[in-house]
Amino acid sequence: MTIEAKFRKLATDNAPGQEVRQGTGDLAAQMRGDPLPGRPVDFSHGDVDAHAPTPGAFDLFAAGVAQGGSQAYTEYRGDIGIRELIAPRLAGFTGAPVDARDGLIITPGTQGALFLAIAATVTRGDKVAIVQPDYFANRKLVEFFEGEMIPVEMDYVNADDHGAGLDLDALEAAFKAGARTFLFSNPNNPAGVVYSPDEIAQIAALAARYGVTVIVDQLYSRLRYSGAEYTHLRAADIDADNVVTIMGPSKTESLSGYRLGVAFGSPAVITRMEKLQAIVSLRAPGYSQAVLRGWFAEPEGWLADRIRRHQAIRDDLLTVLRGIDGAFVRTPQAGSYLFPRLPELSVRPADFVTFLRLQAGVTVTPGTEFSPLAASSVRLNFSQDHRSAVSAVRRLAELVDLYGV
Amino acid sequence: MTIEAKFRKLATDNAPGQEVRQGTGDLAAQMRGDPLPGRPVDFSHGDVDAHAPTPGAFDLFAAGVAQGGSQAYTEYRGDIGIRELIAPRLAGFTGAPVDARDGLIITPGTQGALFLAIAATVTRGDKVAIVQPDYFANRKLVEFFEGEMIPVEMDYVNADDHGAGLDLDALEAAFKAGARTFLFSNPNNPAGVVYSPDEIAQIAALAARYGVTVIVDQLYSRLRYSGAEYTHLRAADIDADNVVTIMGPSKTESLSGYRLGVAFGSPAVITRMEKLQAIVSLRAPGYSQAVLRGWFAEPEGWLADRIRRHQAIRDDLLTVLRGIDGAFVRTPQAGSYLFPRLPELSVRPADFVTFLRLQAGVTVTPGTEFSPLAASSVRLNFSQDHRSAVSAVRRLAELVDLYGV
Repeated sequence: MTIEAKFRKLATDNAPGQEVRQGTGDLAAQMRGDPLPGRPVDFSHGDVDAHAPTPGAFDLFAAGVAQGGSQAYTEYRGDIGIRELIAPRLAGFTGAPVDARDGLIITPGTQGALFLAIAATVTRGDKVAIVQPDYFANRKLVEFFEGEMIPVEMDYVNADDHGAGLDLDALEAAFKAGARTFLFSNPNNPAGVVYSPDEIAQIAALAARYGVTVIVDQLYSRLRYSGAEYTHLRAADIDADNVVTIMGPSKTESLSGYRLGVAFGSPAVITRMEKLQAIVSLRAPGYSQAVLRGWFAEPEGWLADRIRRHQAIRDDLLTVLRGIDGAFVRTPQAGSYLFPRLPELSVRPADFVTFLRLQAGVTVTPGTEFSPLAASSVRLNFSQDHRSAVSAVRRLAELVDLYGV
Repeated sequence: MTIEAKFRKLATDNAPGQEVRQGTGDLAAQMRGDPLPGRPVDFSHGDVDAHAPTPGAFDLFAAGVAQGGSQAYTEYRGDIGIRELIAPRLAGFTGAPVDARDGLIITPGTQGALFLAIAATVTRGDKVAIVQPDYFANRKLVEFFEGEMIPVEMDYVNADDHGAGLDLDALEAAFKAGARTFLFSNPNNPAGVVYSPDEIAQIAALAARYGVTVIVDQLYSRLRYSGAEYTHLRAADIDADNVVTIMGPSKTESLSGYRLGVAFGSPAVITRMEKLQAIVSLRAPGYSQAVLRGWFAEPEGWLADRIRRHQAIRDDLLTVLRGIDGAFVRTPQAGSYLFPRLPELSVRPADFVTFLRLQAGVTVTPGTEFSPLAASSVRLNFSQDHRSAVSAVRRLAELVDLYGV
């Protein structure tokens, strides 16, 4: 495969935040109706101005700078003092031990952790089970390492309200077909659904039976709404050497600007991840690592307040979206994504997404980034200013009307 | 190739800064003589406490945090405002145009830029010309992407004082043998030598003749000592689409704790690098990117002073090293590395490096990290506290005496 062919698969034109690099060709000429005024909202990622970074984060960074060389240069897997500080917190949160020395790595963002985890488990020709829909980079990561993706459907539309709807028979079939790595996000990105205790137990049992390494992206696992029951795979009945959990403070905590992530679990996989990190980026930014000192140690009430505010936005947006004739949207149990399925339109879904941005100042991510079956869905990160988000989704509803069949 | 086999090649046990993870087995029992007291010096990387980050860097970071979401989330290739600010500075420094929009990417450290540049040019089975000795990660990067490395010797020992000593016939032979990528550092890491104008002209001519893409790591190109004549490859007679230049403020500027690098040149390669960055780490830390606003805009006299201080340390260490019977060390023309070849010892070179650390508190990087032919050399980053560095190298000399044949 030529290098050009290899990179054609890595298209980022529709990736969240990259819209600025798109040309719009002559689409503007096909617009219907007038521009819809209103404050632009970029739902492709959260708004850290509307939901500020956790209190004290900057002070911890400043203290890291003041500490100097020992904070600038750390082990590739991150400063041991910080690893020892957060390991028990992560163990407490997930309900299973975390080995600070050998079972935890600090990475440049959770994206960095995902990349390293896949690189450390998948090589050319390896089969990998991937959920559809799921985080858009998962597929690209497997393709980049020339693994073979076996898609497993998650029917979140027809699942009852307390499960993700993963097709467990299809998952077992994937394992039977030779998949030795399974990658999924919980809460699911983009659908916002949480896997039920029973689903997690069955995933654990299947992984144990077939000797599968499971990489679980729990980036949004702290931001859970009332009534959501969350189960950590690593605390289930599963060989701890076969699980890597990925988290980070970029989302719930709005610390994305510091680019921090962690992966913890299997020492064998974590060790390979560090070897690779040595040639990928050396380490997470030394000073930024210091910000993790405040993680899971936020002021009392801070997390509850953050959840309350997001739940209020979620509920108002659900009301607007459910007013769209023929649309379907499931109530997210966690995280800050809405993944409505829009009714049939008279324009191509990709063009609708462009009109939405050009005409209504509303940026969303096309559903096809998450599953080839999700062309009629769009993803909205609703971690936004509350009023602006509601107005923007009203404009989305107007535009659906305007471009309806 | 299994994943385990793939990662065995990525050993990091002797990588700079990873010494803390080494076991020392029963080596301690084989030590000769007493411990040599003195302030420990870690020559595996520079000491940013001894040579502080550029003035104003932290304030620029703080301003980035204050700017909020637009600085936290940027295009994957980095904030366009910052790219537009630094592009003309890099153009001025290197003597050839830099395209801020399409020909420049901001990465997590120069290591990030190197990784992406190799990934964007080398795929399985591709032949890559690599200099020996050169930066230790170059070889690993090529191996990780299953490229085939064609080593080209650089005889810095016998070259005259104003050239690196690259074997240009061997370079042409590598190109004739099918290498379509050439990767080298200038100034050379570890030897500290600078390629002469004639060497650069010949590299450019050979690259043009054989259609080779050249990735040149110029990380240390600002830290040049009196008398050094530096030639930027990208300003030579070469197709601009076939050159990618890598730099960053981690070394001369001591900004390593912010993890920033840049790559600039060929838009085709830069575009592929961004597509890959999207799944490797998304972007360089948003707030850290703001620190680049001060790059190449330091207070008047700051760079001259930094060079003067490093030249003074270099000269004192050269005097000590040249006092070791049978040692050879070439005068570095730029950067902060010394790469002395030690006389024959009665212990294995790798064990000597361990004794040096355990017995004398002196951490150096074994020469074999840079070339299989450099077992008798060690690399010292002399960006250290002046007095401590001199004492530490005196201890190194004592230990050479103690373990001599």
